[in-house]
Parts: sequence; structure tokens; C-alpha cells
Amino acid sequence: MVRRTGRRPGNQDTRQSILHAARAVFAERGYDKASIRAIAGAAEVDPALVHHYFGTKDKLFLASMNMPIDPSKLLPEALAGPRESAGVRLVGLVLRIWDSPAGAAALAVFRSALSNEWTARLMREFVVTQVLRRAVTELSLDPAEAPIRSALTATQIAGLLFVRYVLRIEPVASMPAEALTRAVGPSVQHYLTGDLPQL
Amino acid sequence: MVRRTGRRPGNQDTRQSILHAARAVFAERGYDKASIRAIAGAAEVDPALVHHYFGTKDKLFLASMNMPIDPSKLLPEALAGPRESAGVRLVGLVLRIWDSPAGAAALAVFRSALSNEWTARLMREFVVTQVLRRAVTELSLDPAEAPIRSALTATQIAGLLFVRYVLRIEPVASMPAEALTRAVGPSVQHYLTGDLPQL
Repeated sequence: MVRRTGRRPGNQDTRQSILHAARAVFAERGYDKASIRAIAGAAEVDPALVHHYFGTKDKLFLASMNMPIDPSKLLPEALAGPRESAGVRLVGLVLRIWDSPAGAAALAVFRSALSNEWTARLMREFVVTQVLRRAVTELSLDPAEAPIRSALTATQIAGLLFVRYVLRIEPVASMPAEALTRAVGPSVQHYLTGDLPQL
Repeated sequence: MVRRTGRRPGNQDTRQSILHAARAVFAERGYDKASIRAIAGAAEVDPALVHHYFGTKDKLFLASMNMPIDPSKLLPEALAGPRESAGVRLVGLVLRIWDSPAGAAALAVFRSALSNEWTARLMREFVVTQVLRRAVTELSLDPAEAPIRSALTATQIAGLLFVRYVLRIEPVASMPAEALTRAVGPSVQHYLTGDLPQL
């Protein structure tokens, strides 16, 4: 054991180096092809140290994006239950998070996703691997249809967040989450489980 | 008449001052309350000069946002026709613009809308006054329902743009516009003319 007091600034630097390397590697290779080993290499530290500080690759990814929520904990609970009301529950979950104190941090991540190509890639990796892929599994969607269903779902949910929290267009900006969930939930439900046109 | 050659740099400066003042006044007061007089005052020029350079308030607004398209020309054409297929035509129009060379400029405006509160306000004014208000008029929507219908429409269309052009989530990023229009058009149609839940 090293003495903690003396090492803290160094540890903070190491942590930051790892997070910086993680952002670069996740954006460049995508989540699936980014390995803890490659990130450790880019940060010039031992892979064991990355595990020590951040645990799993999922957790490192969330930390590297300053993501205030962990979809692996939230989604299964929200999506458990009847498939035919999953759309409403998903919209309800998203609005609960964004209306909560975590919303400000989520908004910062959302804003940064638009600022450049590099942050947009991180955001795409987050949405696809952490949110949509889990939703597809929880809902047992047909693998052949899962990509289009989940991407269409993303269009409705991303736009809802954009109009309510970024543009703040009324009445969507101020209406109660319950009413908005009733209005938008059916579109999400349609994308998840409804009949899709010939594409 | 002044000699053009000698005055050009000065004119460019005046033009830029007006555009700068216009952005500030539109963002601060909103489109409806921003007057050419107030913008001229902020730019310290004669209101007649603002009219001379930019024509109408609408045109000045589009110029101040570097908006590459003019919804007053595009929307009436796209929305003319049967009400029950207006959603599909609106989605088709939006994708045609964004898939065209003007799309890159539109994307730049969209990105800037997220970068700070001030540009987000300009974007909201644009969406509400130039796009949604015109769509409501063209479609003769019930005035009591027009705000919620048009704001919900905005959620679906903004999200479609975000996922296809910013995040580039597949297959939405690469699929033909026609197929995407068939997939998303019905949701927009529902928001425009379908039965809304009790809100």
C-alpha cells in the first residue's frame, strides 16, 4: 500500500489520463472494438490500473462521457412489464431522468454531442450500445428488425429531448411529463412493436 | 449614387453590424417583438438602411441565422394537397433539403443551436415563427390545438434530423429518404391531424 496523502494528485492525473485516452479510443474505434488494453496503452498505464479505477468497460465508458446515469440499471426496470406499453414506460423514464437534477448534466452531454464530429461519435456509441441494444434485449425484438426499430425509437426520443429541453418550444417545454408521455408514447410504441412499412 | 468600388468594405461592415445586432435583438426579444427599428438602433444605422440591405424582417432573420433555405417558399408547396398525407410530404421536404447541398449549412445552424442558450433561442424563434406557424396556417389547424400539434411535430422532425445527420445511427443514417419518409411520416401525420390523448 502506498500512502494516500502523498499520491493523490498523481492519482487524479492518472485518472484524467485514462479518461482522456478512453474518449479518444471509444470515438475512434467505437465501443465494441475499444479494449481496456488499448485504452491503457494510449494512457501509458497498466491495464490493471484501468480496471482498478473504473471497473468494467461499460463503467469506464460512462465515466469518460461524464454520463450522470447508468442505463444498465434504469432500462431493465422501465422495460419490464407488458410489451404493448413499453413505449409509454420508456418515454416516462426518459422524462423522469431529464426532469430530475441529473437532467442538467444529461443536457450538457447532449449539447456536447452536437459540438463536433468526435463528440457526436461518442454519443452515438452511447445511444447504440448502452441504450438501444439493451432495450432490444429487454423487449426481445426480432433481431432482423431490431436495428430499424431502435433507430426510429431514437428519432422520437432524441427529438422530444431537443424540443423540451434545448429549444424549449411550448407547450412541450412546460407540460407535465405525464401528459407528454401520453402524447408521444404511442409513436415510440409503434416504432418498437407496430407494423412497419415496407422499407 | 456613391461609387461602389470605394464603399464596399464600409458596406460590408455595416451589413455585418446589422446582422450582429439582429441576432442579439431576435434572441433577446423573440421574433415577434423584435422590430427593424430596434435592430437599426442597436446597429447604430438608419432603419431605411436595414430595409435596403435585407428587405423584410423575415429575410433579415434568415440572413442573421445564415439559414440556407426560406420556409416561406418551400412550405406552401410541400403542404398543398390532401391533409391526410401532409405528414409524409413534410418529412419528404425536410429530408430533400438535408440530403441536398444546403444540408451542410442547415447542419451547421442545427449544431450552433445546441452550443449555447442564446443560439438555442434563435433556433426556437426560427422553428416556431418560420416553420411551425406557417405549417399551421397551410394546414388550417384548429387554433386551440395548433400549438401542441406543431410542437409534437417538431419533436419527431428534429429527432429525425439529429439521428440521421448528427448521430448517424444506422440504418436511419443511410437508408433512402423515401423509405424513411414511409416509416416516420405516419407519426408526423398523427401529430398534425390524428386524435390526441387528453392532455
